[in-house]
Amino acid sequence: MARTGGITSPEEFALRLARNYVDKYDQVTGARMAVEQYSWDRISTSSGPHDHAFSKGTAETRTTVVRKDGDAETVISGLTGLVVLKSTGSEFWGFPDVEYTSLVETDDRILATAVTARWRYVGSDLDWDKSFSAVRNTMLEEFANTHSLSLQQTLFAMGKGALEAVPEIAEIRLSMPNKHHFLVDMTKWDLDNPNQVFYAADRPYGLIEASVIRDDAPPAGSAWEGIAAFV
Amino acid sequence: MARTGGITSPEEFALRLARNYVDKYDQVTGARMAVEQYSWDRISTSSGPHDHAFSKGTAETRTTVVRKDGDAETVISGLTGLVVLKSTGSEFWGFPDVEYTSLVETDDRILATAVTARWRYVGSDLDWDKSFSAVRNTMLEEFANTHSLSLQQTLFAMGKGALEAVPEIAEIRLSMPNKHHFLVDMTKWDLDNPNQVFYAADRPYGLIEASVIRDDAPPAGSAWEGIAAFV
Amino acid sequence: MARTGGITSPEEFALRLARNYVDKYDQVTGARMAVEQYSWDRISTSSGPHDHAFSKGTAETRTTVVRKDGDAETVISGLTGLVVLKSTGSEFWGFPDVEYTSLVETDDRILATAVTARWRYVGSDLDWDKSFSAVRNTMLEEFANTHSLSLQQTLFAMGKGALEAVPEIAEIRLSMPNKHHFLVDMTKWDLDNPNQVFYAADRPYGLIEASVIRDDAPPAGSAWEGIAAFV
Amino acid sequence: MARTGGITSPEEFALRLARNYVDKYDQVTGARMAVEQYSWDRISTSSGPHDHAFSKGTAETRTTVVRKDGDAETVISGLTGLVVLKSTGSEFWGFPDVEYTSLVETDDRILATAVTARWRYVGSDLDWDKSFSAVRNTMLEEFANTHSLSLQQTLFAMGKGALEAVPEIAEIRLSMPNKHHFLVDMTKWDLDNPNQVFYAADRPYGLIEASVIRDDAPPAGSAWEGIAAFV
Repeated sequence: MARTGGITSPEEFALRLARNYVDKYDQVTGARMAVEQYSWDRISTSSGPHDHAFSKGTAETRTTVVRKDGDAETVISGLTGLVVLKSTGSEFWGFPDVEYTSLVETDDRILATAVTARWRYVGSDLDWDKSFSAVRNTMLEEFANTHSLSLQQTLFAMGKGALEAVPEIAEIRLSMPNKHHFLVDMTKWDLDNPNQVFYAADRPYGLIEASVIRDDAPPAGSAWEGIAAFV
Repeated sequence: MARTGGITSPEEFALRLARNYVDKYDQVTGARMAVEQYSWDRISTSSGPHDHAFSKGTAETRTTVVRKDGDAETVISGLTGLVVLKSTGSEFWGFPDVEYTSLVETDDRILATAVTARWRYVGSDLDWDKSFSAVRNTMLEEFANTHSLSLQQTLFAMGKGALEAVPEIAEIRLSMPNKHHFLVDMTKWDLDNPNQVFYAADRPYGLIEASVIRDDAPPAGSAWEGIAAFV
Repeated sequence: MARTGGITSPEEFALRLARNYVDKYDQVTGARMAVEQYSWDRISTSSGPHDHAFSKGTAETRTTVVRKDGDAETVISGLTGLVVLKSTGSEFWGFPDVEYTSLVETDDRILATAVTARWRYVGSDLDWDKSFSAVRNTMLEEFANTHSLSLQQTLFAMGKGALEAVPEIAEIRLSMPNKHHFLVDMTKWDLDNPNQVFYAADRPYGLIEASVIRDDAPPAGSAWEGIAAFV
Repeated sequence: MARTGGITSPEEFALRLARNYVDKYDQVTGARMAVEQYSWDRISTSSGPHDHAFSKGTAETRTTVVRKDGDAETVISGLTGLVVLKSTGSEFWGFPDVEYTSLVETDDRILATAVTARWRYVGSDLDWDKSFSAVRNTMLEEFANTHSLSLQQTLFAMGKGALEAVPEIAEIRLSMPNKHHFLVDMTKWDLDNPNQVFYAADRPYGLIEASVIRDDAPPAGSAWEGIAAFV
């Protein structure tokens, strides 16, 4: 089918496949299509961007999952592998100090995460590329500009911003691991460490996940069924 | 040490560590330091590139391995994870058709690979960032502009170009898997396929590796010892 | 908490954590705990299995996800990374030959997959290790002993077998990629290939997923919410 | 070639391929063949080990690299991905306490590593499976039975043991990352921690690498060239 029709977006391709199978064959009553899109950049040469040579982009992947049950179509798009970091503008303090609390309060830390997001569209006949860019840009702008008092707060700002900027999405789910960068203690060597040297800790980490949903969002039905909602 | 001195390049940092251990402690007669550098891009916001928010770049990694044996210092730098693709401008034909040859000749194919390169510098007091950029840009330009009759030819053009452009390197080693994109045969369905739909085959693949060395290169000594020359 | 109480199974540990947070703190109304368990084997020495030396087992991972919403507790356990293969006893034929069908019928093929399974328990006070072993052993036995007419049939046999053998589970979800091993065509070289040499194809592949549920299963409520049901 | 001749071991297969290319074609003066072997176990059923159903074994991989330059043949075999752990019987103390030393002395710690080894055979007509098992079993036995005062000491015991047990190998190279398990400090909560709860630290880690060579080993020639000696 990729040969006989132009592909404009992963959503359009997934819908085309789903409609083909459900509409054409009696034995098929429903279909779920999951598509991923990777990025490539043109290679810069001394005579400008090259005509047919490319280098692979970042690990960020654009995703879509289309479900078609009879005539009902739902589209859930998203992205994964978007790693972002703020070198300042992030605090974390005021949390309950209870049994087994070991975390230390801080008013200036590195905030880093890898964003996985999926959002549910209302309707299946939209300008997919435009909507995708609007959600993605809004999330990045909120991540960068929000003075963060917690990764939870930043996550909510990103989800809320997306709902406000893009009316055609009903809800958004976000999964964001806290990629800790701990300050190395140098007092043993009579050295201070004013946010210069960090230890990038792989494990353990907090995994912050939430859905942000419009008050008047139409019901999701089976749209999320069978999706790896949070990886 | 990262705290008490500015870091300008991975090479400078590795040399500083090696000199520290070998020069300061009698029991240390030699050192090998391997350093990797990852890329981050500033997040674009509506008010321009952000001051302190970043997104992670591509999987391309800058590498260096410094050896110091007594006073002798060698620096081997490189990169890995640089995935590149040409959608045309690549042919492969004229190879011997012998027992068990199954490959089909083609005069227009996709050429794709993941470049791992390591090059050996002469001297250990250079402008490391400038040299790195010169090698990298030359390799990319040669990959893009060489009309390829084989990945072997392209590899040699990339290595030769680097030696010509950057006099301070004595040799360069390249490891480049042939990431095949095979044309899907659609004749069964009475469809042509004029380089429209490909099958990205993961395995098996040809792994093209070679060293390109100046005729008058000074001897490598132990520089390559203990290095994972080709991953 | 790992220090102050013995851990008997991942389920017990997850329940203990969830109960601690929900029961002890007013601000916590619910909790979801996900735990993974890896395997280690004793190293065999000439004097028998070693007392305190181990080697890491296979990539198979035992998983559990416990949800506690107020007093309601649900436990969904499973496994992932269990790679299995049958070198014969597998056929695939009789499927519709429609537009774009390219698959060839076969009455003797390699069947291989990587099993990810999650099953929902009724109740939260069970002999977790015994139940886990019973589900796992049943699935393996069904995979091995079912003469397979399709991976779909094998999946259903595995799920049905688990429900029959282990009354305390209400439903089971299975995700099983078809890890194709295609026969290499050697006719070009005047050689037959009676299931001797195969091409292990990484992509594309069919991903077979299904739930097998008892007719009288109690409702799942929110048990599956927020779970990466199928990876 | 896999079709027309039985394969007995990775070494035999690599030698057969190398000899085929170098001996048959004038334009080929040398060849390097790298082969990996994975493990599969028979599935246990209630009627015993199954005849044709298997589950994938551990991540341990058997490797071989054969070089043939004209008539000269060298065989370097090995293994990678063998993860081992001792829960006691390991100490580390007495090291110099110099500038920037932060490590704390201990007389009882967890010792864990992932073994990558490659050893060079003398000759190319050996009982490969027997030699491989002898090297592997000796290394495991030395890891388990050596009361370790350092991972360096354990590495040397493994290499020395292999040379003593298997006369047909001339040298062995080992690469073993120190997979740290740090004791969690629980004094803040008035709890002791007698080697009960550990923090499995991914980074940073020490990478211990060494060659162990017989005094009278024949020269390696180009055997190691182009090998990823240490990954």
